[in-house]
Amino acid sequence: MPNLTVTHEQLKATCKRLFMKAGVPDDEADLVSEVLVTTEGWGVRSHGVMRVEHYIRCLLARGIPPKAELTVESEGPTWAAFDGNGGLGIVVSHRATNKAIELARASGIGIVTVNRSNHFGAAGYYSMMCAEAGMFGMSMSNVGKIMAVTGSSAKSIGNNPFAYAAPAGKHKAVMLDICMSKVADGKVQIARDLGVPLSDGCIIDKHGRPSNDPLDYFNGGTLLPFGEYKGYGFAVLVEILAGVLSGGEIIKNVSAWNKDPNKTGTTGHCFIAMDVSKMMPFMQFEQRMERMVDEILSAPKADDVERILYPGQLEMENAVKSRASGITLLESCVTLLHKAAELVGDELDL
Amino acid sequence: MPNLTVTHEQLKATCKRLFMKAGVPDDEADLVSEVLVTTEGWGVRSHGVMRVEHYIRCLLARGIPPKAELTVESEGPTWAAFDGNGGLGIVVSHRATNKAIELARASGIGIVTVNRSNHFGAAGYYSMMCAEAGMFGMSMSNVGKIMAVTGSSAKSIGNNPFAYAAPAGKHKAVMLDICMSKVADGKVQIARDLGVPLSDGCIIDKHGRPSNDPLDYFNGGTLLPFGEYKGYGFAVLVEILAGVLSGGEIIKNVSAWNKDPNKTGTTGHCFIAMDVSKMMPFMQFEQRMERMVDEILSAPKADDVERILYPGQLEMENAVKSRASGITLLESCVTLLHKAAELVGDELDL
Repeated sequence: MPNLTVTHEQLKATCKRLFMKAGVPDDEADLVSEVLVTTEGWGVRSHGVMRVEHYIRCLLARGIPPKAELTVESEGPTWAAFDGNGGLGIVVSHRATNKAIELARASGIGIVTVNRSNHFGAAGYYSMMCAEAGMFGMSMSNVGKIMAVTGSSAKSIGNNPFAYAAPAGKHKAVMLDICMSKVADGKVQIARDLGVPLSDGCIIDKHGRPSNDPLDYFNGGTLLPFGEYKGYGFAVLVEILAGVLSGGEIIKNVSAWNKDPNKTGTTGHCFIAMDVSKMMPFMQFEQRMERMVDEILSAPKADDVERILYPGQLEMENAVKSRASGITLLESCVTLLHKAAELVGDELDL
Repeated sequence: MPNLTVTHEQLKATCKRLFMKAGVPDDEADLVSEVLVTTEGWGVRSHGVMRVEHYIRCLLARGIPPKAELTVESEGPTWAAFDGNGGLGIVVSHRATNKAIELARASGIGIVTVNRSNHFGAAGYYSMMCAEAGMFGMSMSNVGKIMAVTGSSAKSIGNNPFAYAAPAGKHKAVMLDICMSKVADGKVQIARDLGVPLSDGCIIDKHGRPSNDPLDYFNGGTLLPFGEYKGYGFAVLVEILAGVLSGGEIIKNVSAWNKDPNKTGTTGHCFIAMDVSKMMPFMQFEQRMERMVDEILSAPKADDVERILYPGQLEMENAVKSRASGITLLESCVTLLHKAAELVGDELDL
């Protein structure tokens, strides 16, 4: 099976049909497909349409109810706290972000937490929603234990994803979307499959000793935070806002997104939007963002460096490219989509 | 000259007298001394009373006016933007943080920016003010170019300090106070003076090549972000909020805090406070923070690790210790205090 190139619309229509066959209502199937295909178009394949298969598995196992129903737990002029009732993380997060934007539009800033949700795809998508609404946005989620806190030999906190974005005029947006481990779990799997060692600082073995052998990770080892105690500290920041403040589960009780498709999710999220136009004319903010980005891009290049990138530049460029000339899916992703289709008794038409 | 142990009160009274002799009004001299001595008591010596000498040099050179006067540029229910008019960064930041707390008390969240300010000491101090007010706080500042953006061979962005803190019940507070370079400038100086190599990833030489030789840093080299592009991305986050959004200078025009004592500062800050009690009963928030911290502290320890620490634990413990048994000043710090005293025609009484 060779790599496959499809249009955004084709891919979205296919994903949407599969979600609808799994019982998801039309508008929510449309939304989750749009988010996954957009992320795929950014080149963030780990959080793109390869996830359709797992989401559908959870929907069919009833771990995720087909229709997302958010319940308001607390609400005020600048905040809202939702119970996600175990719905599709992407649908839940999209609504929560829209709420944060609405609050910020009215009051300057909005913070929205969600508890009892699921894997929300790429954190950056929700920050980008804020940027597209002319706002500075932050989005984050706790996840199941997968990383060692500094000094521990064991999985003792999530690698809690965090993103921010801001509108940047001609540069569209500045965006950072990261997790707090030096490498993602999936990268360790790939290294194992390819038989290549990991770089220093990615994992420790089950005794807490530094290791470069991916097998040590699968033999009781754990991921390490990026930047040592600094990445650990940022993981705790996310745990405070998405876990403690959301009223949801914390660290050990947070569901691992890729296990137990029949269990209700206990992931927490937090979304913050700031309407920068309240603080300065929007055009001025954009011009200043352009100036900052232009200055970054004009920094002297190190030897052998082709170009300097601003945070999010690759994703912005990939988005334009994939809209113009289609999205190329990896073979492994096409295989997963076939599996997803099988699960709902469909056949892939890509 | 041996190390010197003094009480918080003694040290503060001395610093205050020196600042007053440099023309700073009583209340502001009291404030800046309290902040510096508290930071010293946390064990954060790089941002403690060793800075008195430089601040006094700037005050005497009139680069910093003796009295800080903040001008409101924009204000609303959840935000305020101040012009710091080049005042002492600590005085300016203390007032801005109080404003953020006041806004959050009324509206749930407050964001306050400051432009045309100076070195603000330890970012964590202002986040801790929020935590002590029962809030989640974030504080940050841009600083002069000292670090390479990813791919550059040159100083092309500040190592922009960032801190957050949250109240944590019996654990007092969780706090992270970091800069975005792998090591601070001062650590490279120390390595040079001791003739020891730097660990990997701290600096590059003037060609942008990795180096472990501290001399390469002083020969046109530059600091590197912690965690590669992730630390770079966080430096940009700070630049957006403290630089772009504050209406102040950006990257290359930001004053280097330790140069030109006769020039008005162009540093920008941003302070964010969230009143968590709006979203859940405060006691519940604290209990949940305690649960999170307890869980972190109970993680299995790696071999040879004595104990696991939560972010900010060392500072909290040092604060208690220094209040009980005094603050021990390094010889180099005492020397700087003597110099500061000389500058204002005083004699050190410690």
